[in-house]
Amino acid sequence: ISSRLPDVGTSIFTVMSKMALDHGAINLSQGFPDFSIDRKIIDLVHRYMLEDHNQYAPMPGAVALRQAIAGVIQKTYGHAVDADTEITVTPGATEAIFSIIAAFIHAGDEVLLFDPSYDSYDPAIRLNGGVPVHLHLRQPDFSIDWDDVRSRITKRTRMIMINTPHNPTGAVLTEHDLRTLESIALEHNLLVLSDEVYERLIYDGVAHQSVLRYPALAAQSLAVFSFGKTFHATGWKVGYAVGPAALMSEVRKAHQFIAFSVNTPVQLALAEYLKTPEHYETLGNFYQQKRDFFLDQIKGSSFEPRACRGSYFQLVSYRNISSQPDVAMAEELTKKFKVAAIPVSVFYHDKTDNRLLRFCFAKKEETLAQACNILRKL
Amino acid sequence: ISSRLPDVGTSIFTVMSKMALDHGAINLSQGFPDFSIDRKIIDLVHRYMLEDHNQYAPMPGAVALRQAIAGVIQKTYGHAVDADTEITVTPGATEAIFSIIAAFIHAGDEVLLFDPSYDSYDPAIRLNGGVPVHLHLRQPDFSIDWDDVRSRITKRTRMIMINTPHNPTGAVLTEHDLRTLESIALEHNLLVLSDEVYERLIYDGVAHQSVLRYPALAAQSLAVFSFGKTFHATGWKVGYAVGPAALMSEVRKAHQFIAFSVNTPVQLALAEYLKTPEHYETLGNFYQQKRDFFLDQIKGSSFEPRACRGSYFQLVSYRNISSQPDVAMAEELTKKFKVAAIPVSVFYHDKTDNRLLRFCFAKKEETLAQACNILRKL
Ligand SMILES: CSCCC(=O)C(=O)O
Ligand SMILES: CSCCC(=O)C(=O)O
Repeated sequence: ISSRLPDVGTSIFTVMSKMALDHGAINLSQGFPDFSIDRKIIDLVHRYMLEDHNQYAPMPGAVALRQAIAGVIQKTYGHAVDADTEITVTPGATEAIFSIIAAFIHAGDEVLLFDPSYDSYDPAIRLNGGVPVHLHLRQPDFSIDWDDVRSRITKRTRMIMINTPHNPTGAVLTEHDLRTLESIALEHNLLVLSDEVYERLIYDGVAHQSVLRYPALAAQSLAVFSFGKTFHATGWKVGYAVGPAALMSEVRKAHQFIAFSVNTPVQLALAEYLKTPEHYETLGNFYQQKRDFFLDQIKGSSFEPRACRGSYFQLVSYRNISSQPDVAMAEELTKKFKVAAIPVSVFYHDKTDNRLLRFCFAKKEETLAQACNILRKL
Repeated sequence: ISSRLPDVGTSIFTVMSKMALDHGAINLSQGFPDFSIDRKIIDLVHRYMLEDHNQYAPMPGAVALRQAIAGVIQKTYGHAVDADTEITVTPGATEAIFSIIAAFIHAGDEVLLFDPSYDSYDPAIRLNGGVPVHLHLRQPDFSIDWDDVRSRITKRTRMIMINTPHNPTGAVLTEHDLRTLESIALEHNLLVLSDEVYERLIYDGVAHQSVLRYPALAAQSLAVFSFGKTFHATGWKVGYAVGPAALMSEVRKAHQFIAFSVNTPVQLALAEYLKTPEHYETLGNFYQQKRDFFLDQIKGSSFEPRACRGSYFQLVSYRNISSQPDVAMAEELTKKFKVAAIPVSVFYHDKTDNRLLRFCFAKKEETLAQACNILRKL
């Protein structure tokens, strides 16, 4: 058997969560909440199951859910989307990303992406015969160097992938970034795949810069969102893609043969739950408090936090404590000190190691306090 | 935008279910039950949600579910599988099939498949750069012509796809078929992708011939199963793949970047529900009664049923009534006579039209009776 992904091992999230479990460590590695979700949405799923909504949903998603999503997008980004043709519900944002790449990337097409980058992007491009072109975000603020982008565009460049708020760094793109992206995408006729799963986890009064806010950009973009992040239920696996009808119809061609459809009662429950704006509009404040609590608790330790403007991830430098590689540091921290984190070098194609760890602060204050008690002693 | 699937439209299931809805037709087209599912499993999902099992399941599937599946396989097929390394839970069987093809099919690899074939097979092969090689099942019994198979094997042949019980024909493979397949797969070092989602819908006392019953064959096979079919919940979208560890680790590499994981509380509910064998062992009888009821009701009509030995699909010939193409016949039946069916020619790459329609009998007796009342009048 010759492998199609010979250099790929088990994803870092699986590795670190298992290590945390095996060593009884507090798990701040894989991104997921450790608190309860809203009982209301649980009871809604139960109700729709009891009411016999247990058979295939329509391939692009339950109609009620697509209509609810269209309403939220209009309200949030002032962008009119047609629920019929411009939204596709997917079993998680990962499948949306994969289906978009599968729909548009032909053998040999180049895709620009920025390291550190989420671990599914590169293999998704390669499995579809594409060529990932890895650029680096700038240090220390993880911003995009647009001159670098321009210089890497070739005749084969087909797509550019962005992610804001950014996993793993917590950086966010600005209006200037989006306008620059727009002009580049238009000039070179590039598709944009915009991973916006942390759209609502953005702090300090800054507005999320969705591609959907920029009509000319939106016209050649596919944006990806996630209910798992917004409603604290990462294990429910429901996301969606938004894009113009002509592009979305291609995405659906791929999606219908990759996954076909998504859990029906969960979709209907989400549609109902979305009717109450406070269910999602309060999320920024909620997580900003967690970020601030974590920052407060980690103060007085030798770890140095970087700026976190969005997402539920906080990067810290451990250079004051150790000069060992981040993978070794994460392992030692997990096994010896019982706090699990993600080493950031794994998100770099060239394994660039800035001696940074990523902590997930989507946790109860008590969990964060416990972890920081340990971190302060190092 | 140049499409990667230029010749692909909306799947026939979506088309016919929508046409049924638009014209108020009884929907015997897309395969799904119209009766309630067991309340026990609904309440189990609710319980696991309330007990905070709402975050990412492990990438290969919840441990409890994989262990339960291993137990069922041992009991059913006498085949020992390692729950840790040889089972992967997927968001539906479709994603399992796609991930298996993504894992093994390199650009230019040929995959043998038998028409009529399920509509995701061919595009899944092509999206992964493979070359689908379409063979025909024999008429009138839809059996495999193994000499034909042998004659179509080349140096580039990498995989052979089988499906038993068969959608859309209701044919089942025999022990002789499996032994022949085994010798061919071994001789030519082929992988076998075995779609066994209707494993429990098999009639007249015949045993399902799973690849898992044949150790040498199982050693180079990936078998795909579906809880949606077995527990009447096609909209829950949970399936799984079974195969030897060395192959499964490649499947997981693809799966982890295509979907990552599957709804956690649903997985845990299924694990619990599987502990009671009668929940799945009674399924054959249950559907055999439906098949027989449908056959009884359609007697006295001008439609001629073919043999249905498994699955919840019944093929009928309408040659006594009309000589029009099956696509036109299905449309007329749906729009004018208000019974929706699937035209079988859409499952043929070359659109072979044997003037056959496929009816799904996974319906309440009252639904089947209503439909047959109409069909008897034609
Ligand atoms: C799909 S598991 C990974 C969760 C996540 O997005 C992260 O931890 O970065
Ligand atoms: C995925 S929708 C199609 C359901 C089905 O398997 C069929 O009707 O053949």
